[in-house]
Amino acid sequence: MHTRITELFGIRYPVIQAGMVWVSGWRLASAVSEAGGLGLIGAGSMKPDLLREHIRRARAATGQPVGVNIPLLRGDAEDLVHAVVEEGIRIVFTSAGHPGKFLAYLKDAGCTVAHVVPSVKHAMKVESVGCDAVVAEGFEAGGHNGFDETTTLCLIPQVVDAVGIPVIAAGGIADGRQMAAAFALGAEGVQAGTRFAATDESSAHPLFKQKIVEASESGTVLTMKKIAPVRLLRTPFAQRALEAEAQCANEDELRELLGSKREMQGMFEGDLEEGEFEAGQSSGLVRDIRSAAAVLTRLLTEYHAATAGLPAISVDLGGDA
Amino acid sequence: MHTRITELFGIRYPVIQAGMVWVSGWRLASAVSEAGGLGLIGAGSMKPDLLREHIRRARAATGQPVGVNIPLLRGDAEDLVHAVVEEGIRIVFTSAGHPGKFLAYLKDAGCTVAHVVPSVKHAMKVESVGCDAVVAEGFEAGGHNGFDETTTLCLIPQVVDAVGIPVIAAGGIADGRQMAAAFALGAEGVQAGTRFAATDESSAHPLFKQKIVEASESGTVLTMKKIAPVRLLRTPFAQRALEAEAQCANEDELRELLGSKREMQGMFEGDLEEGEFEAGQSSGLVRDIRSAAAVLTRLLTEYHAATAGLPAISVDLGGDA
Repeated sequence: MHTRITELFGIRYPVIQAGMVWVSGWRLASAVSEAGGLGLIGAGSMKPDLLREHIRRARAATGQPVGVNIPLLRGDAEDLVHAVVEEGIRIVFTSAGHPGKFLAYLKDAGCTVAHVVPSVKHAMKVESVGCDAVVAEGFEAGGHNGFDETTTLCLIPQVVDAVGIPVIAAGGIADGRQMAAAFALGAEGVQAGTRFAATDESSAHPLFKQKIVEASESGTVLTMKKIAPVRLLRTPFAQRALEAEAQCANEDELRELLGSKREMQGMFEGDLEEGEFEAGQSSGLVRDIRSAAAVLTRLLTEYHAATAGLPAISVDLGGDA
Repeated sequence: MHTRITELFGIRYPVIQAGMVWVSGWRLASAVSEAGGLGLIGAGSMKPDLLREHIRRARAATGQPVGVNIPLLRGDAEDLVHAVVEEGIRIVFTSAGHPGKFLAYLKDAGCTVAHVVPSVKHAMKVESVGCDAVVAEGFEAGGHNGFDETTTLCLIPQVVDAVGIPVIAAGGIADGRQMAAAFALGAEGVQAGTRFAATDESSAHPLFKQKIVEASESGTVLTMKKIAPVRLLRTPFAQRALEAEAQCANEDELRELLGSKREMQGMFEGDLEEGEFEAGQSSGLVRDIRSAAAVLTRLLTEYHAATAGLPAISVDLGGDA
């Protein structure tokens, strides 16, 4: 498959494994890249030294390009950026902050940079500061989410109409039919998180992987809307957060309820009672735990079947459209 | 274009204009059907006698099949159902109630029946009672909406996997790229509301049509979540409803705020301050007011371009998917 995204990143297939806290270390990222997609190490849950170690291991595991996702709101984001460049990474996805923050430094170092956004306005900003691509992420996405609640189906074509740089669709994509849908909307690549969280190589706790597989289409909820909207599996903690919101908890009360360690407690340690489990609505479509390579192959096979099966228009529509 | 939906309804193109209160009378429905889609008269804002008049006018205006949408929660739903059958309508879309309620009567009268649902569970119910097709409608849809907030991108493939009857995708669809996306997901037809509300033949107030055209991708909000979730344009009334929810208004307070005439005040009378304007997230993609036929032609032209432009997979993927 050939798109501007495969060309930009030097990859065989325009499928990107999202950088995910506690879930996408060197093992998952290198497996995806080795299989022909683009794996991203999620720096959001790593100190700079640990990130360096993951980068070294990923580079030892595959000769293919591997990227890193850096949430720019991290207090030590600058250290993470330096670590990435010094360890030889040349593909960086930034998120959760101003896309221009370290862009000149990254571009000077020869990096290709994409930035994640939830809206058309933010996508235009990403283009205007000089990023190479934009990831447009819809309401159905797992983890942190925009305030406008625009879905992937509505967001992607509007972003495609608004910017000239290539658009990567994210949010809700776990199978090849959805990948085909994203391309029909004008995307030139897809980013999948939840689907790759439930793979052999993911560092998600086994209980987290299992809960993704068990989830139905209504198995996730968007909560913490007053402080930082986040989509979680519907576990006891998520239920308590929803109840607090229903009782009009204020921002301080929500912050206190949230605490600071729940992502690790949930996704990494498998604490089903107290932990947070970030996952997208696509959980309902994840029905097994496979190797990352098998997931990628199946995505592409399903993509092929979905595009081959599209009904054709057989009549001349004339010129009045 | 040929799918099970075109065959079921005897139409040229698998594009259905949603039944919409105050918006889709005989003029819009007959224009869509005459152009080769399926127009639905929205009975939700009509008394039985007015519905009969709309059906007669539609049947006088086109020899093509026209359908009627009936919300089953209406107190006089039975009278509407009788009116529809007696006036010779043979395509009925039901919504907002149990899909089996009048099904035997409708089927005995020779009707083809589809029912609108927001979830996989409801879709399975629709199939089990014996409906001919199911409309699966995502979170981005205008007007009344499900509680689970599942988006069209995630809902359609899961419904397609769960039922054998043909699936019509609804929610967020205003252009041909999105139509192609819906078909890639496995739908065999699409239903569009907001796009057809902003046409010459729609009975929406001119100010409503204009506000749809002006809306950005974040121009709608889902509100009244405690009583009956509804997606509205972000007008002063919608803003007041959001504020009441943010202050934890209870169900009674929300019902009092809502009152009973706001749909008519808004969509039909154009009262921008007090009215309700039901519209989907696809409003951001509606950029002009055209004839229904021109909208349909453009949808199909864009569909053709979107499907023709899909990147192919050129390698043998092997058998390990």
